[in-house]
Amino acid sequence: MEDNIFQLQYALDTFYFLVCGALVMWMAAGFAMLEAGLVRSKNTTEILLKNVALFAVSCTMYMVCGYMIMYGGDLFLSTITGDGVAGAEEAASYAPSADFFFQVVFVATAMSIVSGAVAERMKLWAFLAFAVVMTGFIYPMEGAWTWGGSAVFGMYTLGDLGFSDFAGSGIVHMAGASAALAGVILLGARKGKYGADGQVNAIPGANLPLATLGTFILWMGWFGFNGGSVLATASVESANSVAIVFMNTNAAAAGGLITALIVAKIMFGKADLTMALNGALAGLVAITAEPSTPSALQATLFGGLGGILVVFSIVFMDKLKIDDPVGAISVHGVVGLLGLLLVPVTNDGSSFSGQLIGAATIFIWVFGASFIVWFVLKMIMGIRVSEEEEYEGVDLAECGMEAYPEFSGSQ
Amino acid sequence: MEDNIFQLQYALDTFYFLVCGALVMWMAAGFAMLEAGLVRSKNTTEILLKNVALFAVSCTMYMVCGYMIMYGGDLFLSTITGDGVAGAEEAASYAPSADFFFQVVFVATAMSIVSGAVAERMKLWAFLAFAVVMTGFIYPMEGAWTWGGSAVFGMYTLGDLGFSDFAGSGIVHMAGASAALAGVILLGARKGKYGADGQVNAIPGANLPLATLGTFILWMGWFGFNGGSVLATASVESANSVAIVFMNTNAAAAGGLITALIVAKIMFGKADLTMALNGALAGLVAITAEPSTPSALQATLFGGLGGILVVFSIVFMDKLKIDDPVGAISVHGVVGLLGLLLVPVTNDGSSFSGQLIGAATIFIWVFGASFIVWFVLKMIMGIRVSEEEEYEGVDLAECGMEAYPEFSGSQ
Amino acid sequence: MEDNIFQLQYALDTFYFLVCGALVMWMAAGFAMLEAGLVRSKNTTEILLKNVALFAVSCTMYMVCGYMIMYGGDLFLSTITGDGVAGAEEAASYAPSADFFFQVVFVATAMSIVSGAVAERMKLWAFLAFAVVMTGFIYPMEGAWTWGGSAVFGMYTLGDLGFSDFAGSGIVHMAGASAALAGVILLGARKGKYGADGQVNAIPGANLPLATLGTFILWMGWFGFNGGSVLATASVESANSVAIVFMNTNAAAAGGLITALIVAKIMFGKADLTMALNGALAGLVAITAEPSTPSALQATLFGGLGGILVVFSIVFMDKLKIDDPVGAISVHGVVGLLGLLLVPVTNDGSSFSGQLIGAATIFIWVFGASFIVWFVLKMIMGIRVSEEEEYEGVDLAECGMEAYPEFSGSQ
Repeated sequence: MEDNIFQLQYALDTFYFLVCGALVMWMAAGFAMLEAGLVRSKNTTEILLKNVALFAVSCTMYMVCGYMIMYGGDLFLSTITGDGVAGAEEAASYAPSADFFFQVVFVATAMSIVSGAVAERMKLWAFLAFAVVMTGFIYPMEGAWTWGGSAVFGMYTLGDLGFSDFAGSGIVHMAGASAALAGVILLGARKGKYGADGQVNAIPGANLPLATLGTFILWMGWFGFNGGSVLATASVESANSVAIVFMNTNAAAAGGLITALIVAKIMFGKADLTMALNGALAGLVAITAEPSTPSALQATLFGGLGGILVVFSIVFMDKLKIDDPVGAISVHGVVGLLGLLLVPVTNDGSSFSGQLIGAATIFIWVFGASFIVWFVLKMIMGIRVSEEEEYEGVDLAECGMEAYPEFSGSQ
Repeated sequence: MEDNIFQLQYALDTFYFLVCGALVMWMAAGFAMLEAGLVRSKNTTEILLKNVALFAVSCTMYMVCGYMIMYGGDLFLSTITGDGVAGAEEAASYAPSADFFFQVVFVATAMSIVSGAVAERMKLWAFLAFAVVMTGFIYPMEGAWTWGGSAVFGMYTLGDLGFSDFAGSGIVHMAGASAALAGVILLGARKGKYGADGQVNAIPGANLPLATLGTFILWMGWFGFNGGSVLATASVESANSVAIVFMNTNAAAAGGLITALIVAKIMFGKADLTMALNGALAGLVAITAEPSTPSALQATLFGGLGGILVVFSIVFMDKLKIDDPVGAISVHGVVGLLGLLLVPVTNDGSSFSGQLIGAATIFIWVFGASFIVWFVLKMIMGIRVSEEEEYEGVDLAECGMEAYPEFSGSQ
Repeated sequence: MEDNIFQLQYALDTFYFLVCGALVMWMAAGFAMLEAGLVRSKNTTEILLKNVALFAVSCTMYMVCGYMIMYGGDLFLSTITGDGVAGAEEAASYAPSADFFFQVVFVATAMSIVSGAVAERMKLWAFLAFAVVMTGFIYPMEGAWTWGGSAVFGMYTLGDLGFSDFAGSGIVHMAGASAALAGVILLGARKGKYGADGQVNAIPGANLPLATLGTFILWMGWFGFNGGSVLATASVESANSVAIVFMNTNAAAAGGLITALIVAKIMFGKADLTMALNGALAGLVAITAEPSTPSALQATLFGGLGGILVVFSIVFMDKLKIDDPVGAISVHGVVGLLGLLLVPVTNDGSSFSGQLIGAATIFIWVFGASFIVWFVLKMIMGIRVSEEEEYEGVDLAECGMEAYPEFSGSQ
């Protein structure tokens, strides 16, 4: 009888992980649609390919070595042989391969953030080479220091310092944005984005229904991203926690959308759809570091703060001539930091200083390591397409096919 | 041991609510894509913005006051403080915040129906102002009278009269359509829709793949909408009920699609994709009032009736010069009424007279209250864009950006 | 107490079936988007209509007779009356209607494969007539011989011969491709596809973001397709199995995408997005015959084999002048066979000879029966649109409306 109850708990927790993991996998489609909608039509095929390919690379690299680096060595061999990851272990309270499945789709999220920021001028194969290192090594290292519980270079343990990041505002989102920032700095802005006399030229996205669809997909997938991070659901306590996380994740997205819409209306005089979408995403990123302790009203307000911040950040990045076609560095990086700093407001187990040290650790590591990798790639193979290819569009140069061959004139 | 079993029931029912709620949230994306596909390209950005913004407004207003109005006062404070909604209550058989999450996404569905009917000429901010009242007050009031169990203005209780609406053919769909109808009447038809000599001019949607995608999303999300309305799944009886609801929801959509396709072929001589899509949606609306008692064959037939009715209704609305660009009033209103009237065929607990009284109550309240709100908005700020803005497209006027800047010529 | 545990098992297994079924239903949207993205804009409305309509026809025909043919006669009447399928049976370990729901969406998958291969020149109503026979009779017959456990024409039982097809690489995917092949042979190639002097002309798809979205949808839905085929999840053993299936399904898709991308780059010199997408789908098809016994690494390799094979197969089909606009015969047929042949590598319960006999049985039956049905349809009503309609696009001829009336020039 007890065994039957254990089996049911095990089965329910496993199924919950798998459903949440499938939702996180779905976020890859969200990033692909969002980015494909926000670039110009001549660069659409290539951004689509980057998005599907980075997902495949992430899943494969994390299996080959990333999971081992993040959570320890036994799992590596067992993945290869199919024993440990695939089979049940005595002590587990859910299927080990469900855990792997949930973790593996997280990696892809971090990498998806990068593709948007470097869009419209980054070489495809350089990008994929970076993806191999990012998902196989850079992300797993900081994942080991945080969720994995290892000491940072054997020096200090972030958990002991009061660092807490529930579902990854910092570990996933800010990390992705840090890698993107390093790439953008080495890559430079798109031709024509910034005028000689300092003006910023808008480069409108080619397909806003796609961008909106992508945001909805991310919003939905985020229920799995945050909800699955409770790591269990088969008890009253954990079920309540998962339910709160779903409710708050939704509330924060709503709050972020509303404030971004209003702030953009005040600043630009128009109801700016892309800012509203980024506001929703900012709300989601802001709540991700701690979606289980705020009330629904607090979650709405935290999301709302994210929505305000993201509008100013996007404007500010352009002042710095950091050219990020989809606003990924602002949404995931700047607001990711905000999310970390909001944790101590509702979670007593974290400290403001711990959050700062954790954020600094993640940023320094991911930015620094990424900068080196991007730099090496720049030396070896180059990371930027030629001026002519950029003018013609990377789709024909890299992929040999247009995304909309019958519709697009030349732009 | 008993406690463990209770905990598992609690956890499974909670998880089921959350999964169903996520599917209902996904319907918001479905409405957005459906409507974006059926309007002209020059009005696409604005309809996308309306759809994402109404979802955010719905979630926020329902939290602030709608949930309290619909289900009682304690919940209001507890949402603010995070005690009741967020925490577990002794008597609950699932997480209270899971219930809130499932309810909150329903509100957005009702509001999504409105945006389609008033598309291509309604002012954005007037629409959002209406959304605040609709989701914070008008819908919660009739929700209180039905699912909330309150007496209508203290006079009569719909449940006692034999009214039954399982998942909301009337409470959600017909209610949304009633609000839309009031808006459309005050708003008037789009320029050029009806000729001086009485002819009806077709205004084709700009992007039928989007409309098809939206229909598929709604079809999928409807499993959560109807399936979650069983309100429990952790017993043989409730699990059977949920399974029957999934099966019948699917069967009714299939039936509606097939009959609408055939009727449209006979009437217009062509296989009309948009009618087929509306047929599927009509099938879904028709079964929503009672998906748990029919057999699969009955569900197919009920859906099929909806599919036939919707084609005639759409044609008839144009005769009345009620200009509804996406057919929302026919799909959700006329077929919503059909759904209510079909309940007594298979559910002994309902009566034909109860269904009529309930439908009348919902319609009179929502149409009347909405008419007043739309009218006040018309006086204060105006609800219709200028003739020039309508001609140029509301995207540039309201949002300052085109949905497809590289593709669309001027139309 | 024991009864309570049974009830929870029953409820969890039922819910798992329903979630997986909803994901499989979602694959219908994936096929629709994939195919709509890969045809020319002038044939887009019609392919969308074929996809939604075939889903509706499949669900209805399988209810009316297909389920009975595949799993026995009692179920037919009970579907009609609502007793057996709808109600709980003593011996069942999950809701009978959940089983029906899961089975019914599988049928549509098989049929969706056909629509892509015959796109851009097949008459709509001939296609739907074929769908009636395919989903009501041809597929259920071979389903009865395999998953249904019946002897093939009373002669031999495939299971006894060592045939094993976990989730349908052969029973669903190769079967769909076999029906498609028969249709394509009788239909002939699109005008202009093959030059008089033997050259193959590329006919690019009109909307690659849609095709990418469709692939992501299929990838996600496949978790339900393969994961649900474990047929139970409410024990440690079955939960582990479901988790392994999710992990391996994902790994195989990743492997297929990577190898197809690399092979296409080597062969064509470009990073070919459509080949990468077909590679991911090939990986999924390859693992479908046995996703529960390989390790994650093996799954990646099996998927990778599928990705390599699909590129060569697509090139080879064009050599044979078998014109398949979306590559469905290669993805689902050729790689489906590969999937069957890989089963004995990791599953001792199957044999290489059993797989060959099973594959031959499925192919001969489905290809033969389909050929006869297509042939009869060709005689009675014709299966190919007129040359002028093909030139103008089938959208106007069949559906009376363009998919993108504002964007597309004439092509």
